[in-house]
Amino acid sequence: MKIGVFDSGFGGLTVLRALMDRIPEASYLYLGDTARLPYGAKSRETVARYAASSAKFLVGEGAEFLVIACNTASALALDAIRDAASVPVLGVVETGANAADVSSATRDVMVIATAATVESHAYAAACRARGLRVIEKACPLLVPLVEEGWIEHPVTAEVLRIYLTELTEQARQAELNADTLVLGCTHYPLLRGQIERAVPETLWVIDSAVATAAQVDRRLAGSRGTNTAEPPQFFATDSVAKFRTLGSRFLGHAIESVELVDLGN
Amino acid sequence: MKIGVFDSGFGGLTVLRALMDRIPEASYLYLGDTARLPYGAKSRETVARYAASSAKFLVGEGAEFLVIACNTASALALDAIRDAASVPVLGVVETGANAADVSSATRDVMVIATAATVESHAYAAACRARGLRVIEKACPLLVPLVEEGWIEHPVTAEVLRIYLTELTEQARQAELNADTLVLGCTHYPLLRGQIERAVPETLWVIDSAVATAAQVDRRLAGSRGTNTAEPPQFFATDSVAKFRTLGSRFLGHAIESVELVDLGN
Repeated sequence: MKIGVFDSGFGGLTVLRALMDRIPEASYLYLGDTARLPYGAKSRETVARYAASSAKFLVGEGAEFLVIACNTASALALDAIRDAASVPVLGVVETGANAADVSSATRDVMVIATAATVESHAYAAACRARGLRVIEKACPLLVPLVEEGWIEHPVTAEVLRIYLTELTEQARQAELNADTLVLGCTHYPLLRGQIERAVPETLWVIDSAVATAAQVDRRLAGSRGTNTAEPPQFFATDSVAKFRTLGSRFLGHAIESVELVDLGN
Repeated sequence: MKIGVFDSGFGGLTVLRALMDRIPEASYLYLGDTARLPYGAKSRETVARYAASSAKFLVGEGAEFLVIACNTASALALDAIRDAASVPVLGVVETGANAADVSSATRDVMVIATAATVESHAYAAACRARGLRVIEKACPLLVPLVEEGWIEHPVTAEVLRIYLTELTEQARQAELNADTLVLGCTHYPLLRGQIERAVPETLWVIDSAVATAAQVDRRLAGSRGTNTAEPPQFFATDSVAKFRTLGSRFLGHAIESVELVDLGN
């Protein structure tokens, strides 16, 4: 079984890492569309066009299952990707909402994500479709803080404190009794420890990378084969040197080789 | 005289604002290549291709003089832009270096900018060509803090304190006696007050927007005409709604209408 994982950048490597831990016998292709990142600031039409071409590339390279490890693409372009790809597709918005559905006893959940993901209200729609009440909050500084490497850093702790205080106030005003917090951005698993320390113990924090890996595992049960896995292959649309350096932080170990690909317009 | 101002996003609006203050009798075209921002994370080849197509667009719309109000494009692609455009071109890296040359008595200067601008070492090269000694420091969190609207905010003050302390230490190790600090990013003029409060009074802070406007004024002296200016025209390659909202903060007053343009690949 060859699984293709797609993100606009490096964040999706947290999902690849969780997948490799959970399904070590699969082979993996990872594409970071780094020439066109971040998708977060772009319109639905642009994101759909970029994501569809990226999905086609991975299927062309042999992917038999696609994981859209990019919240913006999952939020804005999942239908476009399913139309473009001839293989099953799972996106991190639906896996996050599924995990919240299983986790929440109060049926009230909170989601933090980038501005673009929140503006799409894709998590709200996916949670409501599962009978959950939900509030969403944009936390635009968290991705740059992670990319600066300020993981265990007082400034990051203070930014998280401000964002989580605003989120709690927002929940209070909406009269929600939330017991679940979904990390709706693939960079956020790197801040999971800090976030768990900043929220009450009774709040369940859903790491989208781990949740996605568990659900891919379930979907593939019985059809994932027993072959010895090949090492993962990495593709990027720009700056392979930066991909190796920054990507290793997200993957948790060194990335040896990255192939530069041109996906055109 | 019609002046075209180009940036990958909104930051260049601080330069447009300084230009409109300084040369009110000119007409202005502003292009934000928002579909492909940020240029900062991209390779020299990609930035050169994007910037050249943007410059051609502005000349096609009637620009008789081009201001490259994007540090990354000025740093990585000024030659490519000059090759593509048939009109005079001035970039913010050279105007910043010119202003530092005039300002510095000790001949030692410091530059803060985005990671991509620093990695290009374009400011270092431009300053050294003018006989200055120089150190550069990347401050990747400042752009997201400005875009979050956290201008007069304790977190921004703390991030600036950390960055400026590291910069001072870097200058000490390089045995520099710097009297000039160049703000090498068009977002940073919005933080000028905070930065000036955080550094010694003897350190001269160069605002690239104001420095650029002064130098365009000098270059155009005698040839800028006396016609009544038309209102500025704004073009963006993506999300005109976001351009209006976020752009108004950089320009300092409301942006009424933005035209969406497709620059292709």
